[in-house]
Amino acid sequence: MSEQTEISQLGEFGLINRITDGIQPLNASTITGVGDDAAVMHYPDTEVLVSTDMLVEGVHFDLTYVPLKHLGYKAAVVNFSDIYAMNGTPRQITVALAISSRFTVEHIEEIYSGIRLACSIYGVDLVGGDTTASRSGLVISITCVGDAPKDQIVYRNGAKDTDLVCVSGDLGSAYMGLQLLEREKVASGGDKDFIPKFEGKEYLVERQLKPEARRDIVAELAEKGILPTAMMDISDGLSSELLHICKAGNVGCRIYEDRIPIDYQTAVMAEELNMNVVTAALNGGEDYELVFTAPLHYHDELNKMKGIKVIGYITKPELGCALVTRDGNEMTLRAQGFNHMPQD
Amino acid sequence: MSEQTEISQLGEFGLINRITDGIQPLNASTITGVGDDAAVMHYPDTEVLVSTDMLVEGVHFDLTYVPLKHLGYKAAVVNFSDIYAMNGTPRQITVALAISSRFTVEHIEEIYSGIRLACSIYGVDLVGGDTTASRSGLVISITCVGDAPKDQIVYRNGAKDTDLVCVSGDLGSAYMGLQLLEREKVASGGDKDFIPKFEGKEYLVERQLKPEARRDIVAELAEKGILPTAMMDISDGLSSELLHICKAGNVGCRIYEDRIPIDYQTAVMAEELNMNVVTAALNGGEDYELVFTAPLHYHDELNKMKGIKVIGYITKPELGCALVTRDGNEMTLRAQGFNHMPQD
Repeated sequence: MSEQTEISQLGEFGLINRITDGIQPLNASTITGVGDDAAVMHYPDTEVLVSTDMLVEGVHFDLTYVPLKHLGYKAAVVNFSDIYAMNGTPRQITVALAISSRFTVEHIEEIYSGIRLACSIYGVDLVGGDTTASRSGLVISITCVGDAPKDQIVYRNGAKDTDLVCVSGDLGSAYMGLQLLEREKVASGGDKDFIPKFEGKEYLVERQLKPEARRDIVAELAEKGILPTAMMDISDGLSSELLHICKAGNVGCRIYEDRIPIDYQTAVMAEELNMNVVTAALNGGEDYELVFTAPLHYHDELNKMKGIKVIGYITKPELGCALVTRDGNEMTLRAQGFNHMPQD
Repeated sequence: MSEQTEISQLGEFGLINRITDGIQPLNASTITGVGDDAAVMHYPDTEVLVSTDMLVEGVHFDLTYVPLKHLGYKAAVVNFSDIYAMNGTPRQITVALAISSRFTVEHIEEIYSGIRLACSIYGVDLVGGDTTASRSGLVISITCVGDAPKDQIVYRNGAKDTDLVCVSGDLGSAYMGLQLLEREKVASGGDKDFIPKFEGKEYLVERQLKPEARRDIVAELAEKGILPTAMMDISDGLSSELLHICKAGNVGCRIYEDRIPIDYQTAVMAEELNMNVVTAALNGGEDYELVFTAPLHYHDELNKMKGIKVIGYITKPELGCALVTRDGNEMTLRAQGFNHMPQD
């Protein structure tokens, strides 16, 4: 970026005008958006869904290798993902942004260009927010409002004994992308002209920097008339989410190591880093794929669906939650997912 | 607080259980709250309102003199205030919290005890959130969902020529409370045993640390059948909010210096600090009072209402926005409110 404008040149309201310029509502439920104490929406016939996610610099992202536009895109998409995980449709977001004085108007526009790109791709309206200073670092907190017909909402507590356990896409790639980015950051030694080695691993980088929400899977299931009994998006890792589903539904599960979908690049990267790829797939977070359960009689239909893999089944609670390894042993599932909480 | 628990002892989900323990929904619109990817609500007959506010340590609050419980209370109330300012009723909040490793479980419980106290007083449900680490400092971002019948929503753009300009409560006290707290912080020199001098100025401290949203004023106006033509809450200062109302409605205004409601303690404190009290009342933020406009024929009724003061009237836009001073001069209103944006 060439010209840089100090935020103080525009002021808070000038900045708001700049980042919200030309926004037009895409959803009938959006009555009025940015520009009042609150946004106004109308949901007469559906349930309203709301979810919040906060991304903090130095915890969830590292601006040495995360472009601001990608950051904005990801911050929006991870919120959409929560709404899809309820089998709903995201409709509106509000964005709260805390920025330190090292950011210029152009930097904020970059973040918002990513947020607005995500909104336009997913058909979501940006209806409000708060932009404020921070002493250090960037914080983005997005809240997403969505809707779903009452009888279509999928909670995490509906899994029943003998249900199938399914996941979309592939797992562990976002985590391996993070490892790759971290490796290249170290290799660069802070040299701005350093060219990172991403050849043949572009997919991993993209999965980490620009995740997508699985709107397509939700739509495909609806088209086929398959209503999952429980569903979550995989933000903390498959093990962690599946344990939530089992605890909430008071059930157990068996999933099969050889059925966990892993991309070729993920496997190669794990090999290079001498890491166990199954561990990465079970515990690496941020894939934003869906894990869901569905009645057993959908087995053939689900098995045929592109982008969905049946990886196991739900059991009675007393059987616990376990991974069946390739050699037929059972390993108890543990939540060792990403933990963005302070540690000692 | 005596016993302190490291967050890592509980883990993220243990912490969530602890801070959301025993929450019961107060609103019929709250279907399910904490514990899934998104909260579920139902709003068949009303418009849905949503607003977001973020509070950042070192920018909006200083933990040397802001107790964590008060901070939680204030973070919630300022969001309720935005919904009341649309003539709506706050119903649900989501809370995103970023905390550094210096905070313990008990600290977070303190913050949440304030949030939950505010929720119980204002009848609002805590339905979701995100708790995460931060590298430094505390950030609280709250989003509030509320509702209002379509024909009762008050936007900021409805003020008409000859409308009355009214404010609730008194102005400048929260700002003077901040000056007092800052003065005593300096006087303490960091001594933990220092006893700050708040005698006779308790009201100012309370206005800064524990603001209330003017639910009572909104209810009283509704009871009397008075629907404001425009309304905002005063977070940035009266001048700033009034300029928004005039710009949005394409009108001007005249307000009278001698009608601006100022508390005795505010005046005394301004005198002590050698500050202009009217400037504090016009530009000091965080009073969370309401400024609204209403048709002229409500003059007598509004004049009789406790806690409301008619301070001027709306004019044609070409007359601009001005304060009429005690000596009859006109001073153009300028937004010099609190600015929580980075400055050079």
